[in-house]
Amino acid sequence: MTHPPKTPLLDQVLYPADLRKLEDRDLPQLAREVRDEMIDAVSRTGGHLGAGLGVVELTIAIHSVFDTPDDRLIFDVGHQCYPHKILTGRRDRIRTLRQENGLSGFTRRAESEYDPFGAAHSSTSISAGLGMAIAADLDKTDRRVIAVIGDGAMSAGMAYEALNNAGALDARLIVILNDNDMSIAPPTGAMSAYLARLASGRTYMGFRDFGKKLTAYLGKNIDRAITRAVEHARGYVTGGTMFEEMGFYHIGPIDGHSFDHLLPVLRNVRDNARGPVLIHVVTQKGKGYPPAEAAADKYHGVNKFDVITGAQARVKPNAPSYTSVFAEALVQEAALDDKIVGITAAMPNGTGLDKFAEAFPSRCFDVGIAEQHAVTFAAGLAAEGYKPFAALYSTFLQRAYDQVVHDVAIQGLPVRFPIDRAGFVGADGPTHAGSFDTAFLTTLPGFVVMAAADEAELKHMVRTAVAYDAGPISFRYPRGEGVGVDMPARGEILQIGKGRIVKEGTKVALLSFGTRLADCLLAAEDLEAAGLSTTVADARFAKPLDHDLIRQLARHHEMVITVEEGSVGGFGSQVMQYLSSEGLLDNGLKIRSLVMPDIWMEQAKPEAMNAHAGLDRAGIVSTVFRALGRGVAVGVAG
Amino acid sequence: MTHPPKTPLLDQVLYPADLRKLEDRDLPQLAREVRDEMIDAVSRTGGHLGAGLGVVELTIAIHSVFDTPDDRLIFDVGHQCYPHKILTGRRDRIRTLRQENGLSGFTRRAESEYDPFGAAHSSTSISAGLGMAIAADLDKTDRRVIAVIGDGAMSAGMAYEALNNAGALDARLIVILNDNDMSIAPPTGAMSAYLARLASGRTYMGFRDFGKKLTAYLGKNIDRAITRAVEHARGYVTGGTMFEEMGFYHIGPIDGHSFDHLLPVLRNVRDNARGPVLIHVVTQKGKGYPPAEAAADKYHGVNKFDVITGAQARVKPNAPSYTSVFAEALVQEAALDDKIVGITAAMPNGTGLDKFAEAFPSRCFDVGIAEQHAVTFAAGLAAEGYKPFAALYSTFLQRAYDQVVHDVAIQGLPVRFPIDRAGFVGADGPTHAGSFDTAFLTTLPGFVVMAAADEAELKHMVRTAVAYDAGPISFRYPRGEGVGVDMPARGEILQIGKGRIVKEGTKVALLSFGTRLADCLLAAEDLEAAGLSTTVADARFAKPLDHDLIRQLARHHEMVITVEEGSVGGFGSQVMQYLSSEGLLDNGLKIRSLVMPDIWMEQAKPEAMNAHAGLDRAGIVSTVFRALGRGVAVGVAG
Repeated sequence: MTHPPKTPLLDQVLYPADLRKLEDRDLPQLAREVRDEMIDAVSRTGGHLGAGLGVVELTIAIHSVFDTPDDRLIFDVGHQCYPHKILTGRRDRIRTLRQENGLSGFTRRAESEYDPFGAAHSSTSISAGLGMAIAADLDKTDRRVIAVIGDGAMSAGMAYEALNNAGALDARLIVILNDNDMSIAPPTGAMSAYLARLASGRTYMGFRDFGKKLTAYLGKNIDRAITRAVEHARGYVTGGTMFEEMGFYHIGPIDGHSFDHLLPVLRNVRDNARGPVLIHVVTQKGKGYPPAEAAADKYHGVNKFDVITGAQARVKPNAPSYTSVFAEALVQEAALDDKIVGITAAMPNGTGLDKFAEAFPSRCFDVGIAEQHAVTFAAGLAAEGYKPFAALYSTFLQRAYDQVVHDVAIQGLPVRFPIDRAGFVGADGPTHAGSFDTAFLTTLPGFVVMAAADEAELKHMVRTAVAYDAGPISFRYPRGEGVGVDMPARGEILQIGKGRIVKEGTKVALLSFGTRLADCLLAAEDLEAAGLSTTVADARFAKPLDHDLIRQLARHHEMVITVEEGSVGGFGSQVMQYLSSEGLLDNGLKIRSLVMPDIWMEQAKPEAMNAHAGLDRAGIVSTVFRALGRGVAVGVAG
Repeated sequence: MTHPPKTPLLDQVLYPADLRKLEDRDLPQLAREVRDEMIDAVSRTGGHLGAGLGVVELTIAIHSVFDTPDDRLIFDVGHQCYPHKILTGRRDRIRTLRQENGLSGFTRRAESEYDPFGAAHSSTSISAGLGMAIAADLDKTDRRVIAVIGDGAMSAGMAYEALNNAGALDARLIVILNDNDMSIAPPTGAMSAYLARLASGRTYMGFRDFGKKLTAYLGKNIDRAITRAVEHARGYVTGGTMFEEMGFYHIGPIDGHSFDHLLPVLRNVRDNARGPVLIHVVTQKGKGYPPAEAAADKYHGVNKFDVITGAQARVKPNAPSYTSVFAEALVQEAALDDKIVGITAAMPNGTGLDKFAEAFPSRCFDVGIAEQHAVTFAAGLAAEGYKPFAALYSTFLQRAYDQVVHDVAIQGLPVRFPIDRAGFVGADGPTHAGSFDTAFLTTLPGFVVMAAADEAELKHMVRTAVAYDAGPISFRYPRGEGVGVDMPARGEILQIGKGRIVKEGTKVALLSFGTRLADCLLAAEDLEAAGLSTTVADARFAKPLDHDLIRQLARHHEMVITVEEGSVGGFGSQVMQYLSSEGLLDNGLKIRSLVMPDIWMEQAKPEAMNAHAGLDRAGIVSTVFRALGRGVAVGVAG
C-alpha cells in the first residue's frame, strides 16, 4: 500500500467556506489533490470510484460558486459524492467509507448538513430539488437548489415526471445533467441517443451555428417576413432541445472538466436565473486515473486496489455466487425453450443477464433504469405466450410495485421474477437492503413466492419458474456466494407449494424460508446438544404455503419458529395467519417469527447484520431458550 | 327513462368483422348509433361517459382498418372503452356495466379476446404494447399492436420510460395519442402545454409550412449549402417534435372525429410503418352529447341520468363523505398553520384537495399523474420544514412505494399521507381496491400508520398528522360517506400509538382497525345476546401498536379477533407478531385475524364485498362461533 498522497492545498480546505477563499487559478491544483486523495481512500476501502473521479471539477466549481449548505446541493444516486464528502468536513473519515460505523457510500441527511437530501436509488434528485425550490419560494428567500443527475438516471420515469412538473411550476431549480454516457453500464434508450447527439455538437451547437449563419446570410437581402419566420421557427418549434420544450432554460453542452467553462456558467446561473435551468455538462467517468479511464466500467465499483497498477484485490470465492448460478441456470433452460426472454433495468451485470444476453442477444432486453416499464413490458410479453424473466434486485422491485399488482398479478400473467440481493446487502446499507419483497408479494392473490435455501435450490427454482405457466412466480436469493453444496446437472421442477423436511426431530421445529436454513441447521446442532430434539424444514414457498407441512410441525412439536431474512408481514405472518385461522394456535403451541428488526439497519458485513438481527445461529438458539424459559443461550455447545 | 334508441346499422354489427363489411360512407351513421347506444346504456348504469364519447370515431376507425383481435388494441386506463365493448360482442351486456356480475368498467383479458391487455391505472399501455410488439417480432409475424393513450396519461413517468425504450428498440408499435386536453381534471405539466402548442397548429404545422415555404422560396436562387443546412436542421435538430427525438415517426395532429382524416392515416400506418409510430389525434371529450360537452368535467364519471336533460340522479347522503371531512379538516388546520401544503397527483376533486386549492392556491400542487414524483417532491418540502399532505388513493400509492420507502421513510421525513379509497371501492373493482396499504406501510421502520374508524376520528387524525413532526405518518379512510357521528368543532391531537376501548366485556375481544368498527359493535350486540361478553376496541394505530391495550385484551379474554378492511400482512399480522414474540399466545389464547380474502374480488357494492369477505357483522359473529366450536352463527339475534 502506498503512503497517503501529498495534498498541501486540500489540507487547507476543511469546508466549502475555505474553498471559496481560493483563487480560481488554484482550483485545478485542488482538483488534482482531491482526485489523489479519493483514489488513495477508495484503494483502501473499495467502493465507487469512477463516478466521483468524473465530477471532481464540477463538485469544486459548485461549492466555489454557490453558498452551500444554505444553497442546497443534491446528488442523484450518490455514487459520485466522495469528492463532495472530502470537501465538506468528512475528509478525516473518508477511509471509513462503507465500513461498519463509517461514512455512508451515499449522501445522507443524518451525516452532514451539506447533504440536504439522501440518495442511493436513481432519479430522485429533481423531485426532491423541486420540493426544496418551492419551499424556497414559499419562504420568500433566494436560496438556490442544485440537483446533479447523470444521463443514465434520465431514463427513469420519475425524472421525467419531475421535469414535467418543474417546467410548469416555473420554480427556481438548477438541474445539472452530468452526461458521461455511462451509468453502471452504458445507458440505453432513445433519450440516451438524443443526449449523445446533443453532446456531439453536430446537432444542437450545429443548429445554433446554422441559425446565426442563416440570419447573417439572409440579413437585409431577403424578405423580412422570412427572417421573422426563421426567428419564429427557432423560438417556438425548434427551441432547440427537449428540455426547452419542457420549460427549462437549457445551457450547454459544456466541458465538465474545465473550470473556464464551469465557473462563468454557474456564476451566471446563480445570479440571473429565475425559472428552471438545465446545464448539460459533459464529463468523463474515471477521469484522471488511467486504469479507470481504460476500464470498460470506468471502475464503477471496485474492491481494494493497488494505486500504481490499478490491480484490484480479488477474494477467492468458496462457492459460486447466487447471481451466477441464476444466470447459468437461465441460459441452460433458455437453450431448451425459446420462449424464455430476459429483462433487466440497466443492471445486466449485477443481475447476471449479461451472460444471457451473450447467449441469446435477441431475447434479452435492457430497458434502462425503468423498473415500472420493465415489469409491464414483461407482462405484455407474457400475454403473448412468452416466458419473461424480469430480473430485478429486491430493493428496485419496489419501484414497480404497482405494475406487479396491476399489470401482472390481477391479470394472472406468468411473469417470472428472479429477485436478487434479497436480504441484507452489507456495504450499501439500508437503501439497498432487500427487506420487503416477501411481505409485499405474498399479499397478492395468485402469486407464487419462493426463496432459495442454497444455490442448488436456486437452480431448481429457475427450472420451476420456467415450467410454471399458471400465473406470476418469484424466487429470492441473496447477494454473495452460495454455501458450496453439490450442484445438480440441471434443476428439478419443484412441486408448487411443497416444502421439505431437512432434519427430523420432536420438540422444536425450525421452519426456514430462504438461506437462513444453514444457520437453522447449525442452531439445531446446538439445540440437540442441549437435549432439545429439533426438526428443521425448508419451506421453499411462502405462497402457496405447504399446509400439510405446517400442520404437521404444529401438531408434533412444542414450538415452531419461522426464520427469514426479511421484514415482518412476509413468510412468518403468512404462517401465523394460517395457523391462527385453523385454530392450530388455540392449544398453546409456542410460535415465534424471526424477521428483520424494525429499524433501518446501517451498513456492516451481512453476517454481522444477521447476528444483530438475531437471525443467525446464536439468535435462533437464544429465541428457543427464551421461549422455553431457560434464559438466554449463552455458552451453548456447538 | 327513455326507450332504447333506434340503431338499424349497429344492429348488424356484433363484431368488428361485421363492421369491416360496411362502406366508409356508412361509418358516420354507425358512430351516431354507437353514441346513442352508449348514452342510453350509461344513463341507466352510471359510469364513465365523456371519455368514450370522445373516441367513438377513433374506435370505429381502428376496428375498421386493423384486423382485431389478431392485431392487438390496447386502451390506456380504459375509461374510454365502452364503444369498443359495444362493437366487440358485448353490446348485449352493456347495460350491466360496473354492476355485480356485469361487464367491467375497464378492459379485461378475462372478458374478451378483443381485450388483449387489461387496464385501469394510467399509462401502462405503451409498455404492454411494446412487449406485444416485441413478441410479434420474435414470432416473425406482421401482427400490429396499437396502444391508445390520453394526453393526461403522458404525464406519468411510466409512459416516458416506455417511449424511451420503444424508440431505441425500433419495434413495430403504433401509439395513438388521444389528445382531448382532459383527463379527469385538466392536465398539468410542461408536456401538456407542449401538446397544446402542437395541437394549436401554430407551431408544428406552422413549422412544416415554414419549411415548405422557405425551401420553395430559396429554391435555386440561394446557395445550395444553405438549402442543405435547412434540411440538416430540419432532420437532425428540429425533427419537429419530442416524439421524433424519442425515435418515433410522428403524424398529426389530425381530427379524431373525422373519418376522412382517420381512415387514410391509419391505413397508411397499417401498410407502411415498420418502426414505432405516434399518431397525434385531437378529440373532444363528451363529443356529441350536449350536456357532456357543456360540463366542466365533460361527464367524466356520472350517476344514472336523464338522457333528455342530462340531469344526474343524486342520492341524498346520510353523512358527509370521508373525502370532504378530510378536505374541510385540512383547510381548517391550514388556516392556523402556514407550513401545511397539499399535493395531489391529478386528482384534485377525488381527494378533496380542490377545496384546499381554493382556500390556499399557492400551497396546493397538482403534479399530474405522477405519484412517484409527488411523494419525493413532498419529501423535499418536508426536508425544508413544511408539512406536506400527499393525498393519494390507496391503490395509487402503490405507484410510489419505493419513494415512500427510500425518500421518506429511510430519511424519517415527516410527510403526511392521507390515504383515500382504503378498502373495497365497489364498482371500480379489483384494480382500484385499497387493499395493501396497511401491509406495505407497517413493514417500514419509523412509520406511523393510522386508520379512521369514523368521520370524527378522521378529523382527529388530520390534526394529529399536522401536529406530529417526528417522521412519516399515514391515515386511511374509505370511499363513501361516514357513519353520521357527531363532529367535533376541531379535531383532537391523538396520542401516538394509543387505541381506545369502545365497549368493555370479558370473554371475546374484537380489535378493529378502521371503519369495520361499526360492524364490530353490531357483532358485539349479537354476541352479547348469545351470552358472550364482548369487548370492542378501536386500535387507531397499526404502527406503533398499543402494546398495553393488546396485552390487556390478550390477558383478560379468551379470544382476540382483529378486524380490518385490508390484506393479510397488515394490522392483524402486526398484532400476532407482537403477541407471539411476547409469549402471549403460549397459553392458548384464541387469536383470529380477519382480513380481505386471498382473491381478486370483483366489482359489487362495498357492503356485499365486505359480507363476502366475512368482514361484516355476520362474518365476525360466525368467526367467533366457529372458534368457540359452536358452529356457524346462523340466525343469531340482533
